[in-house]
Amino acid sequence: MASINENYLKLPGSYLFAEIARRVTAFKSENPSANIIRLGIGDVTQPLVPSVIKGLHTAIDEMAQPATFRGYGPEQGYDFLIQTIIDHDFAPRGVTLDIDEVFVSDGSKSDVGNIQEIFGLDNIVAITDPVYPVYLDSNVMAGRTGTLNNGRFEKIVYMPCNAENQFIPELPKEKVDMIYLCVPNNPTGTTLSKAELTKWVEFAKANDAIILFDAAYESYIQEPDIPHSIYEIDGAKEVAIEFRSFSKTAGFTGTRCAYTVVPKTVMGRTASGETHSLNKLWNRRQTTKFNGVPYIIQRGAQAVYTPEGQQQIKEVIKYYMANAKIIREGLQSIGLQVFGGVNAPYIWLKTPNNMDSWDFFDKLLTEVNIVGTPGTGFGPSGAGYFRLTAFGSRENTEQAIERIKTKLSL
Amino acid sequence: MASINENYLKLPGSYLFAEIARRVTAFKSENPSANIIRLGIGDVTQPLVPSVIKGLHTAIDEMAQPATFRGYGPEQGYDFLIQTIIDHDFAPRGVTLDIDEVFVSDGSKSDVGNIQEIFGLDNIVAITDPVYPVYLDSNVMAGRTGTLNNGRFEKIVYMPCNAENQFIPELPKEKVDMIYLCVPNNPTGTTLSKAELTKWVEFAKANDAIILFDAAYESYIQEPDIPHSIYEIDGAKEVAIEFRSFSKTAGFTGTRCAYTVVPKTVMGRTASGETHSLNKLWNRRQTTKFNGVPYIIQRGAQAVYTPEGQQQIKEVIKYYMANAKIIREGLQSIGLQVFGGVNAPYIWLKTPNNMDSWDFFDKLLTEVNIVGTPGTGFGPSGAGYFRLTAFGSRENTEQAIERIKTKLSL
Repeated sequence: MASINENYLKLPGSYLFAEIARRVTAFKSENPSANIIRLGIGDVTQPLVPSVIKGLHTAIDEMAQPATFRGYGPEQGYDFLIQTIIDHDFAPRGVTLDIDEVFVSDGSKSDVGNIQEIFGLDNIVAITDPVYPVYLDSNVMAGRTGTLNNGRFEKIVYMPCNAENQFIPELPKEKVDMIYLCVPNNPTGTTLSKAELTKWVEFAKANDAIILFDAAYESYIQEPDIPHSIYEIDGAKEVAIEFRSFSKTAGFTGTRCAYTVVPKTVMGRTASGETHSLNKLWNRRQTTKFNGVPYIIQRGAQAVYTPEGQQQIKEVIKYYMANAKIIREGLQSIGLQVFGGVNAPYIWLKTPNNMDSWDFFDKLLTEVNIVGTPGTGFGPSGAGYFRLTAFGSRENTEQAIERIKTKLSL
Repeated sequence: MASINENYLKLPGSYLFAEIARRVTAFKSENPSANIIRLGIGDVTQPLVPSVIKGLHTAIDEMAQPATFRGYGPEQGYDFLIQTIIDHDFAPRGVTLDIDEVFVSDGSKSDVGNIQEIFGLDNIVAITDPVYPVYLDSNVMAGRTGTLNNGRFEKIVYMPCNAENQFIPELPKEKVDMIYLCVPNNPTGTTLSKAELTKWVEFAKANDAIILFDAAYESYIQEPDIPHSIYEIDGAKEVAIEFRSFSKTAGFTGTRCAYTVVPKTVMGRTASGETHSLNKLWNRRQTTKFNGVPYIIQRGAQAVYTPEGQQQIKEVIKYYMANAKIIREGLQSIGLQVFGGVNAPYIWLKTPNNMDSWDFFDKLLTEVNIVGTPGTGFGPSGAGYFRLTAFGSRENTEQAIERIKTKLSL
């Protein structure tokens, strides 16, 4: 019988959102009339904006005519989209990128999960804790870790982020090679200033490490001193790969488009000391195992950058950030300690009286019929924390906070 | 500096289609007025059919309204599409599948490239020769091979397919664990009868091997005795994973939708002898590193199965297969030995006088301005063969064959 990749067996069986779904279903079957409000999964609820809808319809009409029909496109994405991305997301911030340094993909989850393939198995991986689970799980599956031990995988360097350090991870003291940073952060909703991020770029340069920089939430940044791209920091083009997505920027969670920047100056080495450009390796990975994003979807993504598109997505982001404010201030008004929600659509709250995250989940579900996400689902340092998201409708968000303020026993 | 996955360096630098593009560009710059006809890359040219266009437009309108907007879908695909696939592609052939045995994806290239991740690195891989390059390359990148040696990778079992054995690979004599079969075949355009395919299923059962069955071209099958799915063979659900795609079936090469069937009864083992369902491992892979196909595209794929959609795609396939006949009979009429083109959109021809594949490529390009694909690009046993595809327009196909018949020196 063919053998399996046994690294998969190191992963714990039940996935966070599956366990949440199980508990919600059980509660619902016992309380069929409960009006449950979901502020758990980080999924958008507002429709695609009119510019995107128009771009998609136009592209479909092109696909209906022989003269404008498109078959296989470049695996890396069409130049029309890549050039638009560079012109709008990077050039205005003083970041110059070549067209072959940007790879359009079907999602940051895919890219963040697949990027580790181009690295050797001997690299030491550092993750913040709590963290988006894909960084860790994809490395477990590849065999870059030992087994799970007291909630932590052997060989992984965990960098705790908590109220005590204001959710700013400390620079690792041990040798690390691949550092995953998510800024603005999921799940904590916090971010890093330019000065803080500069420390990381300098650390990576000094210690020959690579930063895998997940900027999926950059469009939610409201404050002026927060970098939107790691390449705003001098020297980052030698040490960082950046992941961006249209999912949260333009409501593409069900429409699927993202991109990853791999500057040609980011290098890795062989055991014998030869250096190789990671850009070339990623290009080989993508051309071999990926066939590009649908033409239609790439035209939809391009429409995000029209003047109307930009105005429209700004309105949607403003809508979600107003929800974030309602959640943040509502929770604060009843004495809860909350973080995030200023430059990110996530609110990270300290459970009252250090309550266990899952106990607080059950309390919120049963007392006020609200679904959130237990902090422990994102790593051991998430214990005693809880995530709410600003992606609900205004009505649901207001109702949820009203229920918490008036009906939750604290 | 972070180390790289050195297995990538085992792959030869220049990819087949890049080399073709290089030669065509060079020829064009020297002969700017040449009217080049491309029968090289296997890419469709006919537009999406009206049913699909309608399905796509309708889905986009849903994405514009809050009540019908869709965010994240199931990573495995929506039930509406999976159930439609099972009801149309399998049930009528007596194949029963559960809804959680079908995984919708963005392409067979992705699935065929990623599937090896769930297997151990010690498995012996068998491929037919010539072969679609992704089967081999993805295993090289994972480290399941030695280095390239005289055109063959160490540790890989090559199963030659040539005119002498009528392109029917012989059952391996050595122990193999993962067998890649593409039926109908790319690049040879040939296929396997039910009796032949039964031998493979029996071999896999007797030898504890897994068959990775790529059926991307099943909709081109015209003759009655050819299985459309490997699951039409008794026992295949215990040993086979099947890959299907809308790319060639419905012109989705630029629209991206495919699916993979992983029956729950296909098992792999750990070193200690525990058995695990590959379905569960693939589900874990997909839920961790993939976020599903765009909702819009899944609705487009579903529309392929409406009565009008079925009628419309049949017409397109008929059109391409008429091209195949024109190519096949045209080449035969001038004494060339040709294979395939009856149950597949590929024509595989023996080069005249055993000419080298690349020499024949240059001859065809320079003498009659036609681009095809050298057989050696698909493996060492492709030497002395050449691939033409039936995916051009009727006009181009007719003109190409006319040029070959009247202007090519043989």
